[in-house]
Amino acid sequence: MNKLINDPGNVVADALRGLAAAHPELRVDHEQRVVFRGDAPVRGKVGLVSGGGSGHEPLHAGFVGAGMLDAACAGEIFTSPVPDQMAAATNGVDGGAGVLHIVKNYTGDVMNFEMAAELAETEVVAVVIDDDVAVQDSLYTAGRRGVGVTVLVEKIAGAAAEEGRPLDAVAAVARKVNSQGRSMGVALSSCTVPAAGRPTFDLPDGEMELGIGIHGEPGRRRVPTGTAAEIAEMLLAPILADLDFTGGDGVICFVNGMGATPLIELYVMYQEVAAILGKAGVPIARSLVGPYITSLDMAGCSVTLLKADDEILRLWDAPVRTPALRWGV
Amino acid sequence: MNKLINDPGNVVADALRGLAAAHPELRVDHEQRVVFRGDAPVRGKVGLVSGGGSGHEPLHAGFVGAGMLDAACAGEIFTSPVPDQMAAATNGVDGGAGVLHIVKNYTGDVMNFEMAAELAETEVVAVVIDDDVAVQDSLYTAGRRGVGVTVLVEKIAGAAAEEGRPLDAVAAVARKVNSQGRSMGVALSSCTVPAAGRPTFDLPDGEMELGIGIHGEPGRRRVPTGTAAEIAEMLLAPILADLDFTGGDGVICFVNGMGATPLIELYVMYQEVAAILGKAGVPIARSLVGPYITSLDMAGCSVTLLKADDEILRLWDAPVRTPALRWGV
Repeated sequence: MNKLINDPGNVVADALRGLAAAHPELRVDHEQRVVFRGDAPVRGKVGLVSGGGSGHEPLHAGFVGAGMLDAACAGEIFTSPVPDQMAAATNGVDGGAGVLHIVKNYTGDVMNFEMAAELAETEVVAVVIDDDVAVQDSLYTAGRRGVGVTVLVEKIAGAAAEEGRPLDAVAAVARKVNSQGRSMGVALSSCTVPAAGRPTFDLPDGEMELGIGIHGEPGRRRVPTGTAAEIAEMLLAPILADLDFTGGDGVICFVNGMGATPLIELYVMYQEVAAILGKAGVPIARSLVGPYITSLDMAGCSVTLLKADDEILRLWDAPVRTPALRWGV
Repeated sequence: MNKLINDPGNVVADALRGLAAAHPELRVDHEQRVVFRGDAPVRGKVGLVSGGGSGHEPLHAGFVGAGMLDAACAGEIFTSPVPDQMAAATNGVDGGAGVLHIVKNYTGDVMNFEMAAELAETEVVAVVIDDDVAVQDSLYTAGRRGVGVTVLVEKIAGAAAEEGRPLDAVAAVARKVNSQGRSMGVALSSCTVPAAGRPTFDLPDGEMELGIGIHGEPGRRRVPTGTAAEIAEMLLAPILADLDFTGGDGVICFVNGMGATPLIELYVMYQEVAAILGKAGVPIARSLVGPYITSLDMAGCSVTLLKADDEILRLWDAPVRTPALRWGV
């Protein structure tokens, strides 16, 4: 196991210390493992809280800051945070306008965020993200899994909150983005959880796992490795079949790296994705290319399309200042 | 070879098409393989040109844009661009104030940029980057190799050019940053060049290559894998021994991923680096954590320290708008 870590049991704690040291504009509660905006709670603003198992960095802590999340809870690797963490995050970002929970659809996350909402001392609305078209139910999920759209919801709902919209309106934006976004991923290698010390699954050379989950949970099927063009087709066909992406204001096209895939390959994938969308009559309005929701050291990628409208594009373009996404400030 | 590519011979061309599609604010000359700022040449501004072998993305094309490079030349994987490309880039960014070449110290790059300067139709000054303390000479280099400081030079000299400084002043800033910056890297796995189809070097499980070059060329020595704390010590001791980083305005501390190392591990490394710097009395003024100068799918990291002063910090903080580094706009 060739990893840049100390004790496999301390990876999350060590990384949070690194995050705090590198980003003094954030405030990290190391005991509760919650990363806050330095100026939280922001008076009068809806607070946005997300979180989940670690190992998907920069999601979620890398998206904490002005224009995006107010706090993120870090669980152990691939393990939901506990309700106490989530409640501490919720109370810590309560500026008097209520708090939105952005929850990826995994059973543990959904259950623990529900308990946290009961524990919290403020009004809470939860939006559950379930954009992965690969499988209907999964190892850790009833219903579709939450993957790449989570990044887009955090950015777009974050901008809506920053504008001063009330809780129900911010939640409505988050729900709209989730309902108009679809994703699918592929793994070219397994990841290795530090505490396990060996690959989560076996993937023989020359094969790939189509529809992989972000914890290495099974996808649709094991298939022979293809070219980038073939892989793009395999990822996009189910996405385009699931939702009509034509007739809007184009899409936000997000090609995401799983952690061990270098950027040059993501741009090769992007051009294949763009070519397919061109043929399908789906214009690209904005794009995002890079490792934003990862699976430790898994090789592979996912593609997310979000059907955009004026409002979504305006909120996407709004200023954001976080460790992993920053523009306009 | 589990890579998201089509023909191994077309990776660079495909990735440039992806870059062009994802970033319409750039202009890509696909024949010459030069990526330009969309508004190049900028009248009255010193033009900044860099480039080198591909496989280090986002370096260099991901750093083209306002406040950084005016153009980047993409060679084949780990192979210098040719003088004609560099001359086309130079002429294309000539706004009447001359052009600065930012050249990593590899024999092919240095020679080809020299020939390009002779071919170009404008005044050219070259600054050669040689910040890698690992080895004195190397497989492709006489003298020290150019690595992480290149990113910092491109940002800081880019800001100086954007301010309207003349060519000699922009070159002086670039030379100052190079002279005050030091780097060293480590590989936990080899990279695989697509056209070769097999790892560039053998690295047995449980060993790492200390002082690795960004093309997989040998470093100082092969050593057993250590903890993040031990690795940070092995990287920082030669850097701190080579230059006195105390007594200034702190350092810009850059922890770079080699391509296959996920962000969570880079933050673990960052906290160990920060702890060592704290003990050494070297304050951190700014930080950068992520994969910015990579080696295809190599696992590992490098650490770069730049001794800062008021001018360097002000230029670092200045607005930048490129695919890979963006703030303030």
